[in-house]
Amino acid sequence: MNLYEESLQLHSQHKGKLKVESKVACSTRHDLSIAYTPGVAQPCLEIAKDKENSYVYTNRGNTVAVISDGTAVLGLGDIGPEAAMPVMEGKCLLMKQFADIDAWPLVIDSKDPDEIVRFVKMVAPSFGAVNLEDISAPRCVEIERRLIEECSIPVFHDDQHGTAIVVLASLINCMRLKGTTPESQKVVISGCGAAGSSIIRMLYAYGFHKIYAFDVDGCVDPDHSENYNDLKKELLNYVNLDHQHYSSLAEAMVKADIFIGVSAPRLVTTEMVASMNQGNIVFAMANPEPEITYDKVKEAGAYIIGTGRSDYPNQVNNLLAFPGIFRGALDAKATKITENMKLAAAKGLASLISDDELSPENIIVSAFDERVVPTVAKAVADEAVASGFVRK
Amino acid sequence: MNLYEESLQLHSQHKGKLKVESKVACSTRHDLSIAYTPGVAQPCLEIAKDKENSYVYTNRGNTVAVISDGTAVLGLGDIGPEAAMPVMEGKCLLMKQFADIDAWPLVIDSKDPDEIVRFVKMVAPSFGAVNLEDISAPRCVEIERRLIEECSIPVFHDDQHGTAIVVLASLINCMRLKGTTPESQKVVISGCGAAGSSIIRMLYAYGFHKIYAFDVDGCVDPDHSENYNDLKKELLNYVNLDHQHYSSLAEAMVKADIFIGVSAPRLVTTEMVASMNQGNIVFAMANPEPEITYDKVKEAGAYIIGTGRSDYPNQVNNLLAFPGIFRGALDAKATKITENMKLAAAKGLASLISDDELSPENIIVSAFDERVVPTVAKAVADEAVASGFVRK
Repeated sequence: MNLYEESLQLHSQHKGKLKVESKVACSTRHDLSIAYTPGVAQPCLEIAKDKENSYVYTNRGNTVAVISDGTAVLGLGDIGPEAAMPVMEGKCLLMKQFADIDAWPLVIDSKDPDEIVRFVKMVAPSFGAVNLEDISAPRCVEIERRLIEECSIPVFHDDQHGTAIVVLASLINCMRLKGTTPESQKVVISGCGAAGSSIIRMLYAYGFHKIYAFDVDGCVDPDHSENYNDLKKELLNYVNLDHQHYSSLAEAMVKADIFIGVSAPRLVTTEMVASMNQGNIVFAMANPEPEITYDKVKEAGAYIIGTGRSDYPNQVNNLLAFPGIFRGALDAKATKITENMKLAAAKGLASLISDDELSPENIIVSAFDERVVPTVAKAVADEAVASGFVRK
Repeated sequence: MNLYEESLQLHSQHKGKLKVESKVACSTRHDLSIAYTPGVAQPCLEIAKDKENSYVYTNRGNTVAVISDGTAVLGLGDIGPEAAMPVMEGKCLLMKQFADIDAWPLVIDSKDPDEIVRFVKMVAPSFGAVNLEDISAPRCVEIERRLIEECSIPVFHDDQHGTAIVVLASLINCMRLKGTTPESQKVVISGCGAAGSSIIRMLYAYGFHKIYAFDVDGCVDPDHSENYNDLKKELLNYVNLDHQHYSSLAEAMVKADIFIGVSAPRLVTTEMVASMNQGNIVFAMANPEPEITYDKVKEAGAYIIGTGRSDYPNQVNNLLAFPGIFRGALDAKATKITENMKLAAAKGLASLISDDELSPENIIVSAFDERVVPTVAKAVADEAVASGFVRK
């Protein structure tokens, strides 16, 4: 039985993966009179007096809504809300397993950004935070931005920032290992969607300023931007600042130091990797099939190789980020997850590898390292408190 | 420490009452590859092929969304979504405890019926059924009707129908005890809101056709209906069919056989009860304080007395209805909860008291009777299947 057959069996045997349980006794008339009527009127009244008491008398402060419209699920694309549910239940499971968060999946029957924004704002009083999931680009960027602006609880689109945080953490350690600075590095990124655009922003914020980005239409180029959508126009603030007119990804990769792939299978050859500078770094992470396989990157002599897979060294796994990010945001009662909080998460993650441990095969820890969630959570919570983005 | 203090302590100590748990293992890389990526793609694809597979591969078929806008919470009124949450968590707790349903609370920040309808329709792919809760009348009636019409999963507003089903079950047994028929009975109902209007409809459907209804504006009267809202106009199909012009509740209660109160405290006197026919039935259930106390009804010599309280005989408790209703609807994969399904639930509930057990002090069983949920669930599921209101 392969993984896919095993998964079908697991899902049908248990009918999904989540259940609801009670935290309190509920079997006698007295239990009911405390947990339900008439006693329950008292916590209701306390919250009516001050909404912040919802963090005292209900589970709100430990809850995350995992919300998807089912338009960009795994590598499967727009498969609809019902079909997205197994992924959303899985995400909730990981929140529980790794960060003891009570997450609940909500798949919604609308692809309209205005409706999705309104939906999340309407449901916000029920939760401590919102994880947007598998919403297609570029809609996801606009939807998340509006929600961050308009909601008083954190809203975080993991597909954008989860991978970006782990990529940055990994690159921070690559810089340590190479003894160099981000300013010196020529970075080529294939993919400008949800993950790619967030990676670009985070890398720029950290000091990588020689970034060149590609999508299906080729090199993102300030001199040919007439038909760009808003998201791609915004990227011009961070990429191709010296107006290169690369005609191909292969041309851009010549003498590059870093390649990041969050795009499509088989776009990169061994020759392209070999054309990069000495000490080159290649993270090919397209899902389910990468831009170039680990073995081929190895063959081409890359210095540091990262993948999306657990069976090779340096797995760039968003599971390293989101459980700790949400744990920290909930612990601090953060009102939003800011760029600085994401940066703090990346630095915290990077710090888990000591100078002694650092090597080309060990630039990022495993998601099963028990220090990950507390370290990321503390970094995020400390930054939330320091910057004042916390509930009164 | 009284009930209210105890309740505050319970809620703050545990931070609410619900948690999420995993139904599957999730601690090794292999576990994750089955429950999450890459294996999870397979159940996603099966559901993408046929949405009905969401009942096979996810928890959908055992879930209920408990949704409120916080406008009519307990006897507290419009206290807002955050403050409604302790009641909604309590409702979910009861669903779990009594019917092993995974219910999740959603309190929403809008009072607009169009927005509430749209919200529920958008979230419907995530759940097996929807329990509307504590939404104020008359909006709740319109909202529920539109949703029943437009959703492919059951939508049920417990405040309307839960009490109505238990009132009817109790009256069915009163008729058995008195050896009479509903057609012979003069019924006076105080309260035409969520519960009152549903009681009126159910009683009428069962054969009670001499019904007189009162609200704050007095007797519902077909000859003075110019300013009635839509809900009240609709009630004219069921009440006051012989065009009585009662000037007061007291006048209507003279020679009545049944009084049902779902209105406000202290509207009924011992004299009014004493003016009713021999063999009279009085269910005074206003919350938190009834139209007339049990002791006063007793003093006035009523034959059968029902209350909303657990410390007197014959508790008309909606907990007798909703867990079994939802269990049955989910078991049958019902597409809606019809009038006939509610009627079947009431008859099932009534049948739990045998002829030998039946007495004025024992017309309805306790919510803790273990036969209640399976009996109601079976009645509802059987009727759903028989009438064809089930998923293909």
